[in-house]
Amino acid sequence: MNTKETHSLILGLLVICLMTAQISAKYEYQIKYLDVPLDHFTYVNESVTFKMRYLVNDTYNPDGKGPILFYTGNEGDIENFAQNTGFMWDIAPKLKASLVFAEHRFYGKTLPFGNASYESPKHLGYLSSEQALADFADLLAEINPSNRSTRGRPVIAFGGSYGGMLAAWFRMKYPHLVTGAIASSAPIRQFDTDCGVFSQILTSVFSVAYTRECSLNIARSWDTLKNYSSTADGLKTLKDKFKFCGNITKAEDITETFFDYLTDVYGNLAMINYPYNSSFLAPVPAYPVREFCGRLAQNFTGLELIGRLQEALSIYSNYTGKTKCLNIANAYDDNMGTSGWDFQSCTEMWMPMCSEGSGKDMFPKKAWDEKKFSDDCFKKFGVRPKKTVALTTYGGLYLDGASNIVFSNGLMDPWSGGGVLQSPNNAIKVVLIPEGAHHIDLRAADENDPGSVRGARQVHLQNIQMWIKQYRKMMG
Amino acid sequence: MNTKETHSLILGLLVICLMTAQISAKYEYQIKYLDVPLDHFTYVNESVTFKMRYLVNDTYNPDGKGPILFYTGNEGDIENFAQNTGFMWDIAPKLKASLVFAEHRFYGKTLPFGNASYESPKHLGYLSSEQALADFADLLAEINPSNRSTRGRPVIAFGGSYGGMLAAWFRMKYPHLVTGAIASSAPIRQFDTDCGVFSQILTSVFSVAYTRECSLNIARSWDTLKNYSSTADGLKTLKDKFKFCGNITKAEDITETFFDYLTDVYGNLAMINYPYNSSFLAPVPAYPVREFCGRLAQNFTGLELIGRLQEALSIYSNYTGKTKCLNIANAYDDNMGTSGWDFQSCTEMWMPMCSEGSGKDMFPKKAWDEKKFSDDCFKKFGVRPKKTVALTTYGGLYLDGASNIVFSNGLMDPWSGGGVLQSPNNAIKVVLIPEGAHHIDLRAADENDPGSVRGARQVHLQNIQMWIKQYRKMMG
Repeated sequence: MNTKETHSLILGLLVICLMTAQISAKYEYQIKYLDVPLDHFTYVNESVTFKMRYLVNDTYNPDGKGPILFYTGNEGDIENFAQNTGFMWDIAPKLKASLVFAEHRFYGKTLPFGNASYESPKHLGYLSSEQALADFADLLAEINPSNRSTRGRPVIAFGGSYGGMLAAWFRMKYPHLVTGAIASSAPIRQFDTDCGVFSQILTSVFSVAYTRECSLNIARSWDTLKNYSSTADGLKTLKDKFKFCGNITKAEDITETFFDYLTDVYGNLAMINYPYNSSFLAPVPAYPVREFCGRLAQNFTGLELIGRLQEALSIYSNYTGKTKCLNIANAYDDNMGTSGWDFQSCTEMWMPMCSEGSGKDMFPKKAWDEKKFSDDCFKKFGVRPKKTVALTTYGGLYLDGASNIVFSNGLMDPWSGGGVLQSPNNAIKVVLIPEGAHHIDLRAADENDPGSVRGARQVHLQNIQMWIKQYRKMMG
Repeated sequence: MNTKETHSLILGLLVICLMTAQISAKYEYQIKYLDVPLDHFTYVNESVTFKMRYLVNDTYNPDGKGPILFYTGNEGDIENFAQNTGFMWDIAPKLKASLVFAEHRFYGKTLPFGNASYESPKHLGYLSSEQALADFADLLAEINPSNRSTRGRPVIAFGGSYGGMLAAWFRMKYPHLVTGAIASSAPIRQFDTDCGVFSQILTSVFSVAYTRECSLNIARSWDTLKNYSSTADGLKTLKDKFKFCGNITKAEDITETFFDYLTDVYGNLAMINYPYNSSFLAPVPAYPVREFCGRLAQNFTGLELIGRLQEALSIYSNYTGKTKCLNIANAYDDNMGTSGWDFQSCTEMWMPMCSEGSGKDMFPKKAWDEKKFSDDCFKKFGVRPKKTVALTTYGGLYLDGASNIVFSNGLMDPWSGGGVLQSPNNAIKVVLIPEGAHHIDLRAADENDPGSVRGARQVHLQNIQMWIKQYRKMMG
């Protein structure tokens, strides 16, 4: 998930969309399309449809009667989610299940207006979570029909991050189509959480990864950088130290562009803080936050701090050693996924973000400027945020009417502050993964996974098997 | 509910919208308005809103902390529903509850485009059940806000007929806003029920009301009427007997217009077959079907059958004795409610209706002509039915994920064939009312109510009290 503050405070799940293809050979699927209505909820242009892309693998389900493991695609190309949700592939043979990955409208190749999809609110206005859920419902009605005499196969929804929110909401809104949902790192309470929580958790990830000096150094670094940025000599020093690709000519190049870049990188590092090498925006080693913090393990100041920070940053920016210079303009590619999510943030996905500084977090103090955010949205997209729509539509804190959902949260994931950490009833399960980063439990099993991740996957599987059993009993 | 076959097979709840004002003095309320978005699910014209009307009575809830009894308005003027849902008024003092009645968009005075609301699909296309539910959700978010530290007051949804469908769906889709729902005579399974069930139940209502000859006479009457309609003399005889207001010049005036009128009247009589005098389209006595059938209690044929049918019909058309002639062009006023429901039938409310004749029901054989229905919709509104949308959206037969709903059905109500008659789980209650007509249990208590109706209201109240208790316990 990619949530932007005024100047892109954090970068989220989008990184996953940019995985290299190195693991894709493991995951094979047919690519299919279904015509779905542009607008499920009005009859103004009722005949307008578009092609929704989805991926299917039926090899583990030879008799066609097994359950369907259904990924509720989020803000990005669905092929990347299919290739990065190894847990579904790991359990499919055991469950004799079909795998289906549905692409979210306006992402990947599911572009309702083709290349014009992002042109204006007249087009982009059809991008919303409820329309996407209705697309998913149509897809299930199509591939898994039920009628008075037969009921469809049991369906389990899966998703991570925004996809996890959608998986939970899909079960909540369409329980007749979805038997249960595994919602991993799904911050469905982010709409009504203190804006500073993300920054606080991020700070604690950097505080405990190696020594506490790591987050203290980062906290100090902002003023140090700002001081260097205030003179031409200082700017030159920074440019030499960090090997910036572009020209650094004014203070704002540091205090805005570079600060945003750093903030994004810290968020990314925490989210992808997996116990094995991985390759997202850039290749990173196992436990990249620990590697990063290992280079900032003591109290540094001044030019030494700058040098250490540069070294630490290279974990993310130059782990291969092949990067010639540091491009701070783009902490991630600005592909359609990004601007789609920006639009969603400007309409229904209202997630205020702020930082307090002063020891409460490692960031410079930055209040949430609602008016500026709204004005920027209007300037960019012609829309303004509907602050309460997600809470009214989906419930936020109050989930007591829901059932058959597992919410899993890595406590080292900065998004966990907006997650479901307490169960409202017996039919909602919460799994906490103390050492976990962003939806690590949905990734393929790895020999380096800590016990809590293995345990979470056990809980998922037990619940899935229970839901399938319940469903089959009901079908009689 | 008013569901039309090719030529208006039946007339439904709309009758209730046309109640006389005689009982309205009992029910007092403030009339209020809330701005709601024209379209909750896209951001194409996100700033366009309209005024939704709702009614409030707070007199039984002096401390402002009591529950909210919330009527999910259906296809008609909300004031009429407020005045005809006496059960809510009867229990409000005991529960120290507020009463709120929300008007459904495109009905009553809640016209998003004013007088132009019904002009074309560009306007009428915003009429849908999901948009209406989202309006209701916005209203509750406004009048009953909750946040992280306090939760709103418990809300119980009520509705009869289409309003009952909405009450059930409101709980299903927005369980965080609605603690429980009383869904009376709510045919949420009508989308997937044999098209002949309505005619069959209607036939049995007329078979058991007095003697079985009643429905047999009706069954014979169609051929008799058709025979008379085939000659000029015969038409004159019919005109004299029935005292038709307009000219009767051709066979179709009988076999189409009059047949449709009769079919509507039989449906109406069954639905309003209450144990006390009531005044809808026309004043009728207590148990009007019994009165009707008392005049057709023996085997009649030919001209005698015609005469008896005319007498019986006067129970509905001329109970006051003041009606000069029989207007068969309008079994009910063609107000906005009707054409709004026709539009909904042409989009999402796909409820096929047919009759089989040949002893299976008392109607002439009439197959469900899907193509003609769809073509008529396209001609009239520029839209075509989406046959599966309600089942995909709301689930139809499969409600096992739902909770805290009471479905009540009068078994003498022809709509009960599409109702929920079996509970899928412990948290869904089904109440059958053997002597009950259309949502009689939601009407004000009357000394003539049969035991099964009183019993149903007891069950409702017990469940409501239990849900409120659950909710308060949850709030801690």
